[in-house]
Order: sequence, then C-alpha cells, then structure tokens
Amino acid sequence: MSIEYSDNSIKNEDFIQSLARGLSVIQAFSNEHPTLSVSEASKITNLSRPAIRRILLTLEKLGYVKSKKGHFSLTARVLSLGYAYISSKNIWEIAHPHMKSLVDITGESTSISVLDGTEIVYVARIPTKRIMTITLGIGSRLPAYATSMGQVLLAHLSTLELEHYFSDVSLESFTRKTIVDKSDLIEKFNQIRESGWVLVEQQLEEGLSSIAAPIRNAEGKVIAAINISAHASRIRDKVKKERFIPLLLKTAEQISIDISKSNQISYL
Amino acid sequence: MSIEYSDNSIKNEDFIQSLARGLSVIQAFSNEHPTLSVSEASKITNLSRPAIRRILLTLEKLGYVKSKKGHFSLTARVLSLGYAYISSKNIWEIAHPHMKSLVDITGESTSISVLDGTEIVYVARIPTKRIMTITLGIGSRLPAYATSMGQVLLAHLSTLELEHYFSDVSLESFTRKTIVDKSDLIEKFNQIRESGWVLVEQQLEEGLSSIAAPIRNAEGKVIAAINISAHASRIRDKVKKERFIPLLLKTAEQISIDISKSNQISYL
Repeated sequence: MSIEYSDNSIKNEDFIQSLARGLSVIQAFSNEHPTLSVSEASKITNLSRPAIRRILLTLEKLGYVKSKKGHFSLTARVLSLGYAYISSKNIWEIAHPHMKSLVDITGESTSISVLDGTEIVYVARIPTKRIMTITLGIGSRLPAYATSMGQVLLAHLSTLELEHYFSDVSLESFTRKTIVDKSDLIEKFNQIRESGWVLVEQQLEEGLSSIAAPIRNAEGKVIAAINISAHASRIRDKVKKERFIPLLLKTAEQISIDISKSNQISYL
Repeated sequence: MSIEYSDNSIKNEDFIQSLARGLSVIQAFSNEHPTLSVSEASKITNLSRPAIRRILLTLEKLGYVKSKKGHFSLTARVLSLGYAYISSKNIWEIAHPHMKSLVDITGESTSISVLDGTEIVYVARIPTKRIMTITLGIGSRLPAYATSMGQVLLAHLSTLELEHYFSDVSLESFTRKTIVDKSDLIEKFNQIRESGWVLVEQQLEEGLSSIAAPIRNAEGKVIAAINISAHASRIRDKVKKERFIPLLLKTAEQISIDISKSNQISYL
C-alpha cells in the first residue's frame, strides 16, 4: 500500500512525514487484516519496523488502537475521525428525511456518494435488503466507472479532471457488462449529462442494477450523487423504472435545495 | 479541546507528537465548525498557528482536507479511516442480518455501541423513524451513564475500571430523569447484571426511551451492547415491552454466537 498524494503542491519542509505514515498505518487494518503485528504492518505499509512500532504505540496511547500479545487492532475511537466529516457536513440532517421517504415509497435501498480519486465513497446509505455480496456502509469505496453514482459524478467532471481520471484509473471488467473502453465511457457520460440520470445494469456485480442522479450545490455544481439500487430483475421492469426515475430525480432535487439553504453548500 | 491519553505507559521518545496533533486537528472539525482557518483551528486545538498550517497542508496533500480561500474542510477520504475499523471488525457482516430482523419485527430502530472512555460510540445502527433531536449515526458518541447501552456496558466493567470511570466522568442532568448520583448508578448496574437487560426512560432526552442488552464474546466477556429505541410512550406500553425484551435478548444472543464463531472475537 502506498500513500496517495493529491496534486496540491507543498514545500518539502512543510510535509509532516510521520502524520502521513500514521494515517497509512490506520488504513492498513482491514477485513483481511483485523489485527496486525509490527512486522505485518511493516509489510503492508512498506515502513520500517521501528517506525511502525512507534506509530502503533502512539496510536495506542491515544486510544485509537489496542494490543494483545503483540497484536494490534483498531478501537471504536477511530470512528470519531470519520464522524468529524459526517458531522461537519450535516449530511444526515439534510439528506436523511428525503432518503427515508424514497425508501418508504420504493422499498429499495438508497445511497449518496462523492468522488474521491478514482473511487466513489458512500457518505449516506439506507439499506433495505441485503442483495450485494459486498457489504456497503458509510465509508465504503467502489470503482467509479462501474457504478451508477460514479458514472454520474464522472459525467460532470471538467475535461481536465476527466483526463486526470483516465490517466489514474485502470479499467477492469467485473462482469460481462462492465464498460472498460474509454470512448464508450465518454459517450455514456455525454448521455448522462443530457438525460440527467443513468441506469447501470450489472456492471459491478451480476444481478445488481442501480439508477443514479446528481445532487447540486447552490451554484449548480454537481457535488454528490444519489442512487436507488435493487435486484437487476426488479429495476429492469419497465413500470418500476418509470416510477423510480421521477422519484429519484425529485429526491435529488429536494436534497440539492436543502444543501443550497445550508451553509455547508460548497464543501460536500 | 485537549488530546486524550489512555493509561498505557509509553516512553517519551516513542510518542510521535505530530501524529497526535494531526489527529486532533481532524477532530477539530464539527457541525459547529465545518470549515476552519489556520487561526480557528489553532484556537480549538491550542496548537500554534505554524504547527496547524503544516498539519493542514499535509492533510491537504494526502487528500483528507481541501481548502478554499484559506478555509479548510474535511473530504470524504476521512471516512476511510473509520471504515478501516468497521471493515476490520466485520461488524456489518455479523450483526446486520440479526439487527434487520429485529427492525422488521419491532418496527423500531436498533443500534450497537461500545464503550470508549466515558462515552458510548455507535458502531452499527438501523434507524427507522427520526425521533431524536440528536442525529445519530455510526461514530456518534453519547455519555454512557444516560443511555441504556452505556448502562449495560458500565454494569459489566471491573471494579477498578468502574472506579476509573467515575473519576473521569462528570455527571450532569439532561432531563429530570437522568441518574446523576454515583451510588444510584452503582445500584442500577447491580440490577442490570441480575436481569440481563435495562430499560432507560427519558434520561438523555425527553420523549426517548430504550432497552439494551449485552453482547458477549466467546469467553463470555461483554464487548458491546445492543438496544431498541423508541418514543417513550410506545416503549412504556407494557405489552410492547414484554414483546420487545425477549426479542432483544434473542438478537443479542444470536450476535454473540456469531461473534464467537468469527475470528474477530476479542477485538470488538
């Protein structure tokens, strides 16, 4: 795992290496590695064992990790880092009532996500049935090009941003339906900007389809996307599709209006 | 805001000050402070402006914050720090199906939380209706003594841990019903250990009540608590209460069994 850098220029003397390294150690814990020894964390992060040891001891002192016989694991305190984001954006306050209405009417799951690098990140989600093999929750990340929300977000990038995206991303097939051709994706993005929504069928996982629409701030800039996801067979059903799209578009608009009213407008 | 230290001893030369400071800057963002300038962050964290500046530039370079005219705000990337915890604990995989059944049968919200210092932290939640003025989500924190899950978790601390808790906590009244007397709380904890569940009525917020029960690991140690929360009037209703408690206890037991089976047993 390497540390990802954004394009922002920063003087070398201003960059705090130990902060970057500490955050990369937190990220090293995962489903496959719920506990890590110093040498395991060293392998994952490519940092030296003495560096890892000091980082883990510091994180333990601060209450973010705990140890048992030389094996470290994260504590719930780590959640408060992510919570600072959720809380500072007022996402639940703004989006939850509208998402709840949508779930009540459609009986299907809805999520909101934003773009981070080449991936979408879930920032709000109300699940109904468990249909995906991937378990999704707030903070989950998925490749943008293979998801409905990702395609909506990519469709509204500037030409320059989209160039950066395509130079960073590696397009791979998850199903037979995944679009992996750059010009096919660009064509799709043009369609999305015209129609204002997208239906993505089984491009990430067999049996799963979703429709998505953009959420805008007061200046009309697309800052997030909202979807309805369901079994492919249910969503393909013409009738439902015709019912779902106006509902989704109305929900996206209501959330956009409420975001414009709040003072957290441009920062989502 | 001061940095909280746990009781773990660590040599001064091992403690990475800049990592601790960086994490405290992430925590400085909140609902009241969604964006921060260098001097605002300096006031909240008590760190010098040059230190804050370097931290924010580093976090920006890493993609965790972004800036606009000297005002910084968190990005969705911060969620991936909390997600490392959720993912590494397999919480959703294990608890979600059981919580979902409970919500389907009762029609009320359910949550799971763990103790962190004097507070409970929500690690899983399926909300139904929005009944609290406080918006709760994964990562939300509440004072342990005024909540049903908190009282369950405190009831199962060791005598020494409970002494530490009482020396750290400041007991204040949120409603007329909040228990703020230490000996009354200890008496309550004794009752909880006997009965195996607790009903907490309107001790945190008027109109809100909840029942909670412990979740245990393979060794029988209480590692989390699960609740059902609802309007005070609904939950007080004797019939519902009698139906809810066996349902909650059954759910807690099923989750405990599944946790025992998983290899993330003792690390929740």
